[in-house]
Amino acid sequence: MSLNPQYEDIGKGFVQQYYAIFDDPANRANVVNFYSATDSFMTFEGHQIQGAPKILEKVQSLSFQKITRVITTVDSQPTFDGGVLINVLGRLQTDEDQPHAYIQTFVLKPVGGSFFVQHDIFRLSLHDV
Amino acid sequence: MSLNPQYEDIGKGFVQQYYAIFDDPANRANVVNFYSATDSFMTFEGHQIQGAPKILEKVQSLSFQKITRVITTVDSQPTFDGGVLINVLGRLQTDEDQPHAYIQTFVLKPVGGSFFVQHDIFRLSLHDV
Repeated sequence: MSLNPQYEDIGKGFVQQYYAIFDDPANRANVVNFYSATDSFMTFEGHQIQGAPKILEKVQSLSFQKITRVITTVDSQPTFDGGVLINVLGRLQTDEDQPHAYIQTFVLKPVGGSFFVQHDIFRLSLHDV
Repeated sequence: MSLNPQYEDIGKGFVQQYYAIFDDPANRANVVNFYSATDSFMTFEGHQIQGAPKILEKVQSLSFQKITRVITTVDSQPTFDGGVLINVLGRLQTDEDQPHAYIQTFVLKPVGGSFFVQHDIFRLSLHDV
């Protein structure tokens, strides 16, 4: 059991890095490198998948190109294995759709001096402007 | 590393049980029993505290009595220590305030055939009706 005292910076840094890649249509598929081949779970709008290959399929199946994203809050907590739990609240607009509030939760798991995304839950909020 | 195949039922059951206690003003303080004396983190609207005594203080400092709550979605994932990561999206109204969308994330940690809340992050969404 060891808490990483840098959890706040790690959380904010990860969110910035992850979305910089995800929000670039030419680069989006590279988010797969944040996930483990077997030990990563993603729940995308209630649909649960496991492992980098299926996560890549999901990311590549997204039909939009452009994303305009605003991060509202990033709440991080240290996990007891040296990782970080991250909750992101924000707003996003894909292509010419209406903007939506969304929530995304990540759990980063430490491995060899770096981290992979062990858990990822994404939901658009239905109750927003 | 062992995943609990019942994670979905555990997540839904926990959410029901937790809010039944929290939403009853006469019973609210008893949510403290879900937390560990030392190994529980709560981030409440960006304010982070650790351990059941401080969490109890926080809960007892809440000024509202009545809560009307609607759960929109509960997304659960099994964690690799046999616990459960839970994301709740919902709406709540305290006393006669406006209803607000909110997000709450729990990580349940297994201990002796039961679970405690190791992580709890709560945020009201600012961008809702």
